[in-house]
This record gives sequence, structure tokens and C-alpha cells, in this order.
Amino acid sequence: MENEPSKLPEFIFGKLSTAEGRLQRVKTKGWGLNAELCLNPLDPAENELIEITVRVGADMAVKAVTLHYSTDGSLPQVNPENLHPSTMTLAMQRKAIEWDTLQWSYLEKWIGVIPEQPQGTHVQYAISAITTTNQVIYCPYFLNKSMDDSLLNRFSGDNQPQIYGFYVDNETIPIWLREAVIYQIFVERFAPTPGKEWSATSDLSDFFGGTIKGIIAKLNYLSDLGVNCLWLTPIFLSSSHHGYDPISHSLIEPRLGTEADWEMLVKEAHHRGIKIILDYVANHFSNQHPSFKTAQTQPDSKEYHWFRFREWPDDYECFFDVPSQPEVNSENLELRQYLISNACQWLEKGCDGFRLDYAHGLSQAFWSIFRNTTRKLKPDSVTLAEITQPPDFMRSFTGRMDGCLDFKLLELFRGFFAFNTLTVSQFERQLRQHLAYFGNSLVLPSFLDNHDMNRFLWVVKGDKRRLQLAALCQFSLPSPPIIYYGTEVGLSQLREVGRLEESRLPMLWGEEQDRDLFSFYQQLIAWRRDNNYLWRQSTQPQPLIIDDQQGVYVYGCGNYAIALNNSPQGTTVILTEGKQGSLVLKTQSEVNWDTQTGNLDLPAYGGAITRLTH
Amino acid sequence: MENEPSKLPEFIFGKLSTAEGRLQRVKTKGWGLNAELCLNPLDPAENELIEITVRVGADMAVKAVTLHYSTDGSLPQVNPENLHPSTMTLAMQRKAIEWDTLQWSYLEKWIGVIPEQPQGTHVQYAISAITTTNQVIYCPYFLNKSMDDSLLNRFSGDNQPQIYGFYVDNETIPIWLREAVIYQIFVERFAPTPGKEWSATSDLSDFFGGTIKGIIAKLNYLSDLGVNCLWLTPIFLSSSHHGYDPISHSLIEPRLGTEADWEMLVKEAHHRGIKIILDYVANHFSNQHPSFKTAQTQPDSKEYHWFRFREWPDDYECFFDVPSQPEVNSENLELRQYLISNACQWLEKGCDGFRLDYAHGLSQAFWSIFRNTTRKLKPDSVTLAEITQPPDFMRSFTGRMDGCLDFKLLELFRGFFAFNTLTVSQFERQLRQHLAYFGNSLVLPSFLDNHDMNRFLWVVKGDKRRLQLAALCQFSLPSPPIIYYGTEVGLSQLREVGRLEESRLPMLWGEEQDRDLFSFYQQLIAWRRDNNYLWRQSTQPQPLIIDDQQGVYVYGCGNYAIALNNSPQGTTVILTEGKQGSLVLKTQSEVNWDTQTGNLDLPAYGGAITRLTH
Repeated sequence: MENEPSKLPEFIFGKLSTAEGRLQRVKTKGWGLNAELCLNPLDPAENELIEITVRVGADMAVKAVTLHYSTDGSLPQVNPENLHPSTMTLAMQRKAIEWDTLQWSYLEKWIGVIPEQPQGTHVQYAISAITTTNQVIYCPYFLNKSMDDSLLNRFSGDNQPQIYGFYVDNETIPIWLREAVIYQIFVERFAPTPGKEWSATSDLSDFFGGTIKGIIAKLNYLSDLGVNCLWLTPIFLSSSHHGYDPISHSLIEPRLGTEADWEMLVKEAHHRGIKIILDYVANHFSNQHPSFKTAQTQPDSKEYHWFRFREWPDDYECFFDVPSQPEVNSENLELRQYLISNACQWLEKGCDGFRLDYAHGLSQAFWSIFRNTTRKLKPDSVTLAEITQPPDFMRSFTGRMDGCLDFKLLELFRGFFAFNTLTVSQFERQLRQHLAYFGNSLVLPSFLDNHDMNRFLWVVKGDKRRLQLAALCQFSLPSPPIIYYGTEVGLSQLREVGRLEESRLPMLWGEEQDRDLFSFYQQLIAWRRDNNYLWRQSTQPQPLIIDDQQGVYVYGCGNYAIALNNSPQGTTVILTEGKQGSLVLKTQSEVNWDTQTGNLDLPAYGGAITRLTH
Repeated sequence: MENEPSKLPEFIFGKLSTAEGRLQRVKTKGWGLNAELCLNPLDPAENELIEITVRVGADMAVKAVTLHYSTDGSLPQVNPENLHPSTMTLAMQRKAIEWDTLQWSYLEKWIGVIPEQPQGTHVQYAISAITTTNQVIYCPYFLNKSMDDSLLNRFSGDNQPQIYGFYVDNETIPIWLREAVIYQIFVERFAPTPGKEWSATSDLSDFFGGTIKGIIAKLNYLSDLGVNCLWLTPIFLSSSHHGYDPISHSLIEPRLGTEADWEMLVKEAHHRGIKIILDYVANHFSNQHPSFKTAQTQPDSKEYHWFRFREWPDDYECFFDVPSQPEVNSENLELRQYLISNACQWLEKGCDGFRLDYAHGLSQAFWSIFRNTTRKLKPDSVTLAEITQPPDFMRSFTGRMDGCLDFKLLELFRGFFAFNTLTVSQFERQLRQHLAYFGNSLVLPSFLDNHDMNRFLWVVKGDKRRLQLAALCQFSLPSPPIIYYGTEVGLSQLREVGRLEESRLPMLWGEEQDRDLFSFYQQLIAWRRDNNYLWRQSTQPQPLIIDDQQGVYVYGCGNYAIALNNSPQGTTVILTEGKQGSLVLKTQSEVNWDTQTGNLDLPAYGGAITRLTH
């Protein structure tokens, strides 16, 4: 196996999808002055020393590094002529010199230790350094501007100090999130208002007529399926079908419904034990957003500072270079206030949490405040980040988020079950390492596809068996599973994703639904919800059989054994000879277990859950 | 500055001289199973736990890793059916899972801890692992054979366990090495026997007629220069002018002299307080070496196993793919015995230590035994390795060698003083980091050039000022300096190094010598030897002035300040205003220090040593 992929089969991780992009990222971390992934422990508690690390890159020569921090909520000041009494300074120490063959240079790590802080303390800090030629610089710093092709200096201007921050707290992740079975509703495409039909359009960028009222009417369907949490794609004012370019963070888009509809949805969903998570887009606004319009017409307005103008009025940072989606400056305190207070309003209106779009586009300092504030208002609300970045970066959100959508697991699922780019032992290894790497500190909702990529069923050319097999695996891992709307009834797509819209066909209803598949998902969800104690404990799969030749992977999960035959040939595996047990769930009727012999027959792409009794 | 050089200006580090080569090296470490640089501490002492680390790469899935070790000198056995009572086994533990963006994978580190061992213990170990598909493999292991483009699995055959080893001891590096000023004599080119002239040849691959007798006749010259250690290029039987393809490790090449000449040289040199280090080529033999001839004609001979045949008799591993230089198998016990016993004989004949050619071509386990044995025989003998590998690799020889020739410092010297690829602050930073990285654990003899590259004076187009400036720096750093023969009297070359021979012109004698330069070197050596306490303490340079614009670097060294103007413009620096002092040494007569004002005038490429008195 050539393990180092020069190119990932999908573009999920953006620039990191190519070997060149990954190399560039690794190199960038070896240049300049940076403090990314710098906190140890990741989520400091009240009795812990807090170690901050700064990396000094291959092109930097520094003789002193200073940590400036505050613990009273004031912003730390770095200017020695204008020291704020609340700002404490601490000389960081050169702790390690390491050789880096790739950079062909030594790199330095400087460490500063903030003493234990009381419960609830908001620690904020900035880092300055003095070069050996007596220049004062701030972290992050890049000597070579062409090198900052990463997130490293996204949150500070040209040689301005970035303010980092976090809370010392003992927040725990709400239990309901670990027990959640999440259903992702693309609102515009899920269900029209009762009595109405889908619009007569075939243009997937157009409006098909899904509404909040439509969702309400389908709550019994969802309840019957068994899910206990809905994630709604953005419902706020927007001129697009997807809503990921908000014109408001408080007003509902009239096409989708009204405040009254929302209230009804919350009431009816909660009545059925279903939580609702809203998609919240903080990273970028529509250029039609009133705040951006103000910024673009009034350079002396406070809103001017909410955005990141390279040259006012028409040259500004924007999401994927799309001018209609200006990106915000998450360091601006008034912008933070705007985003957080609007989020709080939705919690007050019954929302149970947020899926936070492109969360790595805003600073961790911002998200720390976001979570702290929302959690105080509604203690069992949750924050789930979309972060299409490598695991080490994802993990650094521990304590700033309750969870991250698991794009790395998505890659493994699709690699193993759809693209056949991973053998059983490779899948098992990476899965095991991945779960162990994160431990229990973040919840990592799992998914097989979403609205930004080919549907899983499309990738496997409609082979339902392979979808069921992947879902069986997805639902027997500790992470809360997400079902992308329609997957449970065989919704696929018409064309390959070029425009992302291809995977956003209107939901199937009535005769169009594959009810066998629905029934399989029903059983899977029921089994999962019957065994919530496993997911509360974050039970890891225990490998029992790893057979690369046969394509068989069997693993223990509590008292269950999960058996997967990820190959086009049927096979028989011997499962727990001499033990008693029962077949709990099977993907196909041909699956058969002879408990006398222990022989488990698995047809091509067949899988089963068996319960073991000793 | 583009700090990450896509290509180093010289090929000193072999494949690592290009960005592709460095990337390949870094990637290789992330594949397979390997235990390179695995010992912590680097050089275990008797009261220390010994931590062994194994890296499990991006393409490996293992469920158990076992350390097999012995402490009684027996070779550890890894075969579970043939366990030797002296072999202890220890289950290694998965200590860390780390994310690697470059490999786009998790990597694992497994750790095993050997308990404290008594003084003098020879610890030898091997590592086995069981994959998740129940295959038994040994360290180092590469699934993808094309990936082993490095040193990682040089010392074991196809899935054979490598035997690692080291001694628990309290060996210290002989003090004389820290005080040494070393003179490298390329024997064939240094001096003909008295009464004879250089041969009438201009072919630099031919024989010019340098001899041991010639060296003896020049000992007064060398003593007058002030050096206290000679490094002789190989003097053993060889058909080449350089001798780096030995036909024997005991017989002196008759062209160069006799045993009696050697005895006389030792006696006369020691009489003058000059030590002698022999160049010892263990990595490869001449194909005319009797042992290789036996191996190539008798596949059942013991010598067959001294070499590494891919396909006997004509396909074998050889040095830089040159068939006339077959490489040895340093794992073979009889070969080890041959190499070490011959080395010991030379110590008994008065040699003070060895410069070990291409030392990384043999295993660290071998060098551990080599040093242990030679040191026991002659407690103040030294071992100096030629290792053209990155600093982390060099540093891992701590405890297996007394020192390594400092190719990294060579790169810095040439980059700063000759190629102008480093600014003052870059040079200062890397120099400081380099010295700190190694600390005091290895002696790193410094040099500006050697017989395998363009002479420094050639690179700077004969500009003596720049040579003197570089030498001033070289001699004021803690590492023992090496002078390549002739440098002190202006020997350069006629053509660019294509064939390495270009830098091996016959030594200049008589009128041809630049006596001003000689006098400068004399002063420099005298100053260095007057201040041996500085080098015994490994005194690091303390930066005083770093001026990238002026090209000025001034650093403290004990009570001295060393001032360097590495620019084509003259300048004046203010040195220690208000202090008293004296000018100890200057590179050019124009250097002047006004101790009243502190103004130190430095002409273009001028430098000085000043003594500060408070």
C-alpha cells in the first residue's frame, strides 16, 4: 500500500486534499512565530497549571518572548508604554531546541506557565517577542508573507498581537448529545407546507418549496424513524436556497416560515422528545446583510471593523473568494456581541444548540466566549463545529466546543465502504487510533455524507447493501450518528456533484420511498437507543476478526459483536464458538447464524449485530 | 528570506541536499516499524531507566510490540520456539498516538523500559511486533520496500531483527580532545620524503609522492604552527591516491612508508606534544581486499557474511554504487572482530584515536563495541565519526563516539562567510541553537573545508580576508578546530571541484607559502591554546552585537569579545564603552580599537579579538 496519498479522493479537506497542500501546511508551522495548538492541558480546569507554547520557526531569531495575560475579562495590553494594571507579564523560557529535517533548521519551543486560576476565570493572553536585532514582534508573525497560507495568522492584522483566550471551567458535555441520533434536514428540500406540492422546477439552485410547516407535518414520520435530534440547515434571511449566506441572524427567511411556525416546530418536536439544532453561520455574511452594507458605505462606522477590508470598499476577505460572502473579523468585540446575543435569542426561543458553520474561520477565543455565554443561558445547549481541518486542529477545540462533525471518520467510512481505498486492517487501525486520539473530550458526530458532497448511495452506484453495511458500522461506534435527510428511504442524486446542489434533491415521500431501507434504519436506531449506556461510556470497538483477504471485520461492542463483510463475495465467519447468543439485526435476509457451530453466514456486503451471552 | 532551501549550495549531505530528499527522509520515518533515534537517555548511565521507543508508521497496524533484550553479552533471541535463557522479553506499551498531517495519518509510539543496569553492562536488544492480521514482524520493517530510501533498515535483512546495543558506562571524553587544534594531512599530498621532489605529474588522481617520512620532516613546521593533533588520511594498503578503499587494515601502503616510519612519526610527534589520529575506513573495503576476494570466490566462507551480497558473486551493496568498494555487513560478529582487533593494534602502536570514515554506514551497536573495546585498551584514545547526516542523527551517537565532524557547522560557516546565504542574525541563531542542541555530550570538531569539497579560499575567490575572518570565528567557538593542510599558507586549487581531487593539490612549501597568513594562523592557534579553560568548559558565544545591515557580529567568549565584519564595507562598532581592554588579535593591520571611545574600526571583512577588563 502506498499509504501517503498524493491526493485524497474527495476535496473535503480543501487545500489539504493534495500532498502539496499538506506539505505547505507542515512547512508553514515551521516558520515565523506561532502559538497554534499551544495550550496544555487543552481545556484547563481550576486546579491546573496552564502551559502556553510558542513555536519559533526556521526563519526567526528571538532573544526574549513575553506572555501578556489577564484574568479579569479585560483585554491584555502588550504596549510597554501603556500597560494596563490588569495585564500581567511573564517571561517565557526557551524550553526546547529541536531539529527539523524538512525545514533543514532548528526550531525552538518557548513555554510560559500561567498559575492555577479559579473556576470561571476568563484567561486572555497575547505574546510578544524581541528579535536578536531588537525588533518587537507579536504572535502570530510571518516574516515571509507568502508563507501564511494557512489559518495561522487569520485573526490578527499585520504584526498586531492576536488575543487568545479560554475559560477555566468544569463544563461537561450534555449527556443527551452522546445519546443523540441526529437527522440533518436541508430545510428548503425536506417537505413543502401541507397541502402544497414541490415547485415545478428542476433547477437545483432554485426554490423547491420546503418549509418549517413542512417539517412540522413530518415530525411523526421522524418520530417513527426514531431520531431524537434535528439539525436544520440555516433558516435565517437569505436569498439562496441553502441559506449559508445570512442577511440576518435573527429574522427567519419568509419563504421558510414565520416565528409562529418556529414556535410550533419547537413545541411539537420537544413534545416528541426531539431536540432541534440550528445551523448558525458566523464566519461570513451575505453582502446584502445590513451590517456589511453599512461597513461598505461608511468606513467610520463600527460595522466597518466587523469585516476584513484589504482595501475599502470593494476589496475584502471573503469566503472561498466569493465576493457575495464577506468574512467577519471575529476579533471585533461588537461583532462578537452581535453574533452571541442573536444566538442566545434562539436558545431562548427553544433551540437546543448550534451547528456552527466553518467554525475554524473564527478564533478559538471567540468560540470560548460563545460557548461560555450560551451554556450559562441554557445549560444543556450544545455547540457542534464544522471544522474541515486535520484531527490535531479539531482536537484543539476541546473545551471551546462540545463537539466537531467528524470529517476524518467520514473519510475513513467512504474510503473503506465506498471507495475501497482501505483494507480492513487499515480501516480498523485508523478507526481505533482516531477514537483513542480524541478520547471522550469532544463529541464527534458521524456521517456518511452531507449537503456538500456526493451522497453515499450515489458513490456506491445505488448498491443499498453497501449503504446498510456502512450505516451498521456508523451506528455501532460511540459517536452520535447523523442521517442526511432521505438516506433512510433511498434518496440519491441524478448527477455527479460538480455543483454541490446535486446532493440536495427534494425528499422522497409516499410511494417513492424505499420502505425496506426505512425499516432497516428504524431497527438500527431502535437498537442504538436501547443501548445508550454504551455511547454514554464512549465504548470503543474491540477487534475480534480482521481479515484483509475476505474483507471481514468483526468487533465487539459491549455484549454485542458487529460483523461486517465488506466484499462482493459471501463468506462464513466463525463467531464466538461455544458461546450462546442471538442475532439482533441483519442487513439482509440471507444473514444466518448457527449458534451451535458459531458459523455466521454473511452474504456479499452483508452485516449483522449479534448479542453474545456467556 | 526563503528559509527552506530547496537545494543546499553544496552536496555535503548527499540526498538530503535537495528538498525532495529531505521530504523523502521525513516521510520514510513515518512508515513501517522503526526504532531509529530511539534511546532515552541517549547514553544511559548506571542509575538510569532506559526507555526504548518504537515508531509505528502510517502503513502499519500492530496489536503487540515486544522488546527482547540481554545484558550478559549474548545476542538476544526473538524466536519464541528457541528462547535463550539470557534473553528477557518485555511487552512494550502504546504510549502515544500522534496525528501527522504530512502522512495524513496517525502514528503510534510504543515504549519499553529496561530497568537500571550495573556499570559496564552491554545491553543488546531486538524488537518484534504482531500485526492486527497476526503476522510477526521485526524492527526495522518496511511494508513498502521502495520506501526504505534511508538508513533505517540498512543493518538487517528482509524481515530479520536488527540487534541494537549500547553500553551502560560512565565514559568521559578525553580532555585533550577538547583542547585539540587538529591538522588534517592528506598523506599523499603533504610532503615527499626529504631529498625527494614531488613527482612530475599534473594528474590529481596520480601519485605525487607524499610519505610518512615527509610528515616526520615537517613536524617542526607543524609544531611551529602550533597544532597539537594530526589527522592522517588512510595510510593502509590501497591502490588509490586517497586510500579510502583499503586492501588491509593492518599493513601500511608501501608507497607511503613502513612500520618503522610510523614508529618514528609517533615518537617524534609525541615528543612535540602532538597526537596522531588515523583515518579508519570500516564501511567499505577495496574489492582487492583478501577478505572480499575470499567472499567473492567462496560462498561458504565466513568472509561471505562480511559483505552484503544481493546476488552472489557480482551483485552486492557498495559504497555510492562503486563496485570496487563493497560495503561490509557490520552485524557480522567475525567482521566486527576483524575491524576492532586491527584498530586495537594501531592503538598499541601509538595511535591516539581514529577518524571513522562514513561511520553511519555501520550500526550504532557496532560502534558501541568499537569504542568500548578501544577505550578499555587505551583510556585516552578517541573516536571521531564522519557522519553526513542531520543533527538529530549525529546526536544519537552520543555515548557511541567521542565526537562527530561538524558538517552542520561547516554548512553555516560556508553559508555565512563564503556564500552569503545567511544574514548575521540567521548565522548567530543557527550557531547558538546548534551548540545548545548538542551541549557537551559530543565533541564536534569544526572545519571550513576538507578533501571532499572546494577549499574555502577557492570559494571566496582567493580573498584571504574572508578566510581569516572565518578562521577567527572557527577558533573562538568551543569545538576543536581542524585546519585542512595548506590552508594556513594560502593553498587553494586550480579548478572547481567536479572530481573531488581538485582540492587535493600538493602542499606549498618554501617561497610558495603565504607567510603572513601562516603568521595569522600561528597567533590564532596560540591564543586558542592559551585559553584552553574556555574550551574545556565548552564556553558558548554570547551575542553582543547583531547587525544585519552592517554585517557585523560581535560576541563574548569568556573575557574576550570577538568582532567580525562580514561585509565588503568598512565599519566602526562601539565596543564595551566605559570598559578597559586590549586588542589581542586582528585579521588586518587596519583594525584599530580606541579604548577611550570604545570605537573599534573594522575594515571590510575585518575581525578582531579584544580582551575586556572591567
